[in-house]
Amino acid sequence: MKHYIGMDIGGTSTTIGLVSAEGEIVDRSVILIEGYASGPIESFLDAIADEIKEIQQRHNVSLEGIGIGAPNGNYYNGTIEYAPNMPWKDVHEVAAYIEDKLNCKSVLTNDANAAAIGEKQFGVAKEMNDFILITLGTGLGSGIVSGGNVIYGHDGFAGELGHAVVVPGGRDCTCGRNGCLEAYVSIRGLLETYHDFGVGKVNTPQEIAMKAESGEEHAKETFVKTGEWLGLKLADAATYTSPEAIIFFGGIAQASDLFFPSLKKTLEANVHNLYRNKIQIMRSGLPLNDAAILGSAALVM
Amino acid sequence: MKHYIGMDIGGTSTTIGLVSAEGEIVDRSVILIEGYASGPIESFLDAIADEIKEIQQRHNVSLEGIGIGAPNGNYYNGTIEYAPNMPWKDVHEVAAYIEDKLNCKSVLTNDANAAAIGEKQFGVAKEMNDFILITLGTGLGSGIVSGGNVIYGHDGFAGELGHAVVVPGGRDCTCGRNGCLEAYVSIRGLLETYHDFGVGKVNTPQEIAMKAESGEEHAKETFVKTGEWLGLKLADAATYTSPEAIIFFGGIAQASDLFFPSLKKTLEANVHNLYRNKIQIMRSGLPLNDAAILGSAALVM
Repeated sequence: MKHYIGMDIGGTSTTIGLVSAEGEIVDRSVILIEGYASGPIESFLDAIADEIKEIQQRHNVSLEGIGIGAPNGNYYNGTIEYAPNMPWKDVHEVAAYIEDKLNCKSVLTNDANAAAIGEKQFGVAKEMNDFILITLGTGLGSGIVSGGNVIYGHDGFAGELGHAVVVPGGRDCTCGRNGCLEAYVSIRGLLETYHDFGVGKVNTPQEIAMKAESGEEHAKETFVKTGEWLGLKLADAATYTSPEAIIFFGGIAQASDLFFPSLKKTLEANVHNLYRNKIQIMRSGLPLNDAAILGSAALVM
Repeated sequence: MKHYIGMDIGGTSTTIGLVSAEGEIVDRSVILIEGYASGPIESFLDAIADEIKEIQQRHNVSLEGIGIGAPNGNYYNGTIEYAPNMPWKDVHEVAAYIEDKLNCKSVLTNDANAAAIGEKQFGVAKEMNDFILITLGTGLGSGIVSGGNVIYGHDGFAGELGHAVVVPGGRDCTCGRNGCLEAYVSIRGLLETYHDFGVGKVNTPQEIAMKAESGEEHAKETFVKTGEWLGLKLADAATYTSPEAIIFFGGIAQASDLFFPSLKKTLEANVHNLYRNKIQIMRSGLPLNDAAILGSAALVM
């Protein structure tokens, strides 16, 4: 049976999974980035390569390919470029380094594109050729699939929906600009929206969700506004790419009952009648801990 | 030598061109829609088919295919659907009708997509796989090419940039909504922008362009604002699809010197630094009267 590595490089940890051609995660291992943050990225990549070798030996399998999902990942160059949440800035040739080290075909893309590919291969988008996948977490990522293919753009960086401006001149964004969707719709964005009401401090979106579910008005309104901001920008995205569905993935997506209604209402109000009542809004069909690994593995399948 | 028909169906007239495989327009013919507007669309399509037969006989050639560009054209179904500027509303199976009538493969897409395909086959986008083509005329149309393919979306209607909202709650649009880009950037939009200054009446964008070129402040400002509205929405489009170039086509595009500077400035100010200073803004490389015919013909090549 053929085996692949699906890897999810994140800001704090990297998860490495051994995946079968059928999409079963046979084994997984986590490397914390903290221990490598002060050194060069090569030490971190060496640790990843060693871990992959160990997994391989443990299961006595050969590898068909290594798929890597990473923040600001560039599919064409196999690079991570200027990732704001990573300890290593500038441009790093990650895929080529891993490929040389392990003598195994390695492909890299950004984490949201990997999640979109995983959703098409193993999740709710199996029968879809045109959809948008949104990841909601520390940031807001997006992978746009058109005609069955991920839209990479001329430079490999297409699909940064989180950095489309939703409130001109609005909140500071990590990218150095103002009013980006990510500054409103992300863990940080949700907390700021709630705190703006001045009714108390919370530490996680889960706390806001719990308050909202128990009927607290400001918490409910936080999610209503979150849906409205999303709906406004997704209306544009739908106008450009006419997707069959918009699929949400990530921790915040669990609270979909709280923001899908206002999202749908705002989306429908802001799209041309050609697109109206045609777009499904849905949650990912993959378990939270598996999707990134499955998506990255699917990248090389 | 192989020959194709490239056809451009517009709101007032339809142009039929006989095109060689090398992109030479061998012959062309125009049918005015006015004479058929009160009858069923079939009478109009019969006239088109008769005209194609005549052209074919005149040059004694066989046809490899018929490409049709039309407003609200649906590539998947070969239909014109709810086109606001056509006498026939609802949904009409145009490609199938022409194909049956002439026993020749017929493909239809919207006019801006056809122009994008023409630009890739014969114009300035020959070497590009990722670009956006904008047609500026009665309306604002767009064709988005990603990875070498036109983005059609799940229903064939992707790429309606003219109906993305640029001014929430703004001007009335022909689509029944408010604030669409087309209500600001189109022949009608330009005239309204100029008339809003209350400094006199003009009848065409050309008049505004002439005034601007001779230094009239309100005319100059009309084009500056036009560029800003375009830049704002194109920043979003660039964020989603990361194009190598945005190419402008149509009468208004001739005045590019008057609105490209403010367009570029607004675009660059509103895109994430990943995309900054990477996107070329340029004019179509095809003659105004040829592009639609060449693009439609290229659709079946």
